Amino acid sequence: MPVSNQPDATHPPRFIAETSFHVRYAETDAMGIIHHASYIVYFEEGRSSYARQRGTSYADFERQGFVLAVTEIHARYIKAVRYDQRITVRTWVTELKSRTVTFDYEIIDAESGELFVTGQSKHICLNREGQIAVLPRNWRDWAAQ
Amino acid sequence: MPVSNQPDATHPPRFIAETSFHVRYAETDAMGIIHHASYIVYFEEGRSSYARQRGTSYADFERQGFVLAVTEIHARYIKAVRYDQRITVRTWVTELKSRTVTFDYEIIDAESGELFVTGQSKHICLNREGQIAVLPRNWRDWAAQ
Amino acid sequence: MPVSNQPDATHPPRFIAETSFHVRYAETDAMGIIHHASYIVYFEEGRSSYARQRGTSYADFERQGFVLAVTEIHARYIKAVRYDQRITVRTWVTELKSRTVTFDYEIIDAESGELFVTGQSKHICLNREGQIAVLPRNWRDWAAQ
Amino acid sequence: MPVSNQPDATHPPRFIAETSFHVRYAETDAMGIIHHASYIVYFEEGRSSYARQRGTSYADFERQGFVLAVTEIHARYIKAVRYDQRITVRTWVTELKSRTVTFDYEIIDAESGELFVTGQSKHICLNREGQIAVLPRNWRDWAAQ
Repeated sequence: MPVSNQPDATHPPRFIAETSFHVRYAETDAMGIIHHASYIVYFEEGRSSYARQRGTSYADFERQGFVLAVTEIHARYIKAVRYDQRITVRTWVTELKSRTVTFDYEIIDAESGELFVTGQSKHICLNREGQIAVLPRNWRDWAAQ
Repeated sequence: MPVSNQPDATHPPRFIAETSFHVRYAETDAMGIIHHASYIVYFEEGRSSYARQRGTSYADFERQGFVLAVTEIHARYIKAVRYDQRITVRTWVTELKSRTVTFDYEIIDAESGELFVTGQSKHICLNREGQIAVLPRNWRDWAAQ
Repeated sequence: MPVSNQPDATHPPRFIAETSFHVRYAETDAMGIIHHASYIVYFEEGRSSYARQRGTSYADFERQGFVLAVTEIHARYIKAVRYDQRITVRTWVTELKSRTVTFDYEIIDAESGELFVTGQSKHICLNREGQIAVLPRNWRDWAAQ
Repeated sequence: MPVSNQPDATHPPRFIAETSFHVRYAETDAMGIIHHASYIVYFEEGRSSYARQRGTSYADFERQGFVLAVTEIHARYIKAVRYDQRITVRTWVTELKSRTVTFDYEIIDAESGELFVTGQSKHICLNREGQIAVLPRNWRDWAAQ
């Protein structure tokens, strides 16, 4: 697999969470391919996996009284995925501020590593009253590096 | 349109809510037809429409401190629907008890009235603590007739 | 795990496919629980997994020129699932005829085995022209017992 | 309603398709708001509506032997939408080339016109063999204003 967490000249070492699963028939559309909105859900599953691999859970984040609201989504579709293919979602943090966090994504073939989709999502931390809040410390820590 | 609210020998007059819309491309699957899980969402939209046509909203129901949890779903698929078809969801109450309600559904072609799917859902009223509760009076009234 | 493939007096030995995964945030609804239509998709993922564990794929089924159309769905909701829980979908064949097949499902907690949802789906084999067809031999074989 | 098709200094007159509907309960998530991936589906419904209001249908586009594949999606989330709100999706063409088309979107409150989400999608025309193709004339015509 061509994916790696190795540092190189342009990208400092960072934590990349990977999660793999089969795409579902319900996620296909009449073109015979995975519907483009499904990848937005895969990105989210990438974030869920990222939190788990960091030893926490987005469920804990909400239990602490916070919500990580999505403020922006971007996806670029390079190659279509078909039913029954097994994909890997790679997720990492590209920017972290006191109240906001940006995740980047790559969705690749779980076997060949071929690139299907890239994306980015921006988030803002809100408290229970819906006001902008400082990210809890443990999230700032794991998101840092 | 062949649908009607007229009484007959076997069915007493009852309130039937109808709502019509185009099915969406995202709801199709690789068979080229609407995915079977989408109709479960259409049934729910039928219930939403039923409440609105009764002069209330399921949002009000939740604001009153209740939740109408689904305990059972059944759907029978007679004919496939394809992208861009316009369907009508017909929704009515078939049983009403102090704590439970049963809805029945027909999904038909909005123009020809041809039958696509029939279904039924059973629900139980819960309060904010997740305990079984008596349905609020206004819901028992409109559901009763 | 309490699940087993062991024969007993009332149920002859049969092949039960199990697949486990985390439910997704996108599958929750404003009640804070997994939306009831999501389980219909989990059932389908159970069928996909069943085919894979039988050494084939539903994708192959379609490549052979057939479609397994859903004619009926039934689900009974026993206990709600929340975000980040890990579930196991158990899938087995309860009836097999030359042109139709019935699957049964149990969705349980992947750790505790607690029962969340049970269900059943009925299917009919269609060919590319949409006509009822005899199930291909390899599917009748693995579905048999 | 504050929406308009009026020309101004910076935007020449163009055709804007508007379609309004209630958001669905199934589209909410555990935050109590519409899930961010749902808006990608609303954008698509905006494109469907655009085609209909132009006197054609995306279904005809596919019947002509073409597919309008999504190559890029962008969405900016300004304000959350809750269950039972009625929204209007405004859709228009911002760029049209021989083989590609770009749509822009605004999702607003159907009553107040308050802005919820903006977005953009880029598409490429493919033929049945998956090769890049020139957009059929009638689509170039209506997209060109």
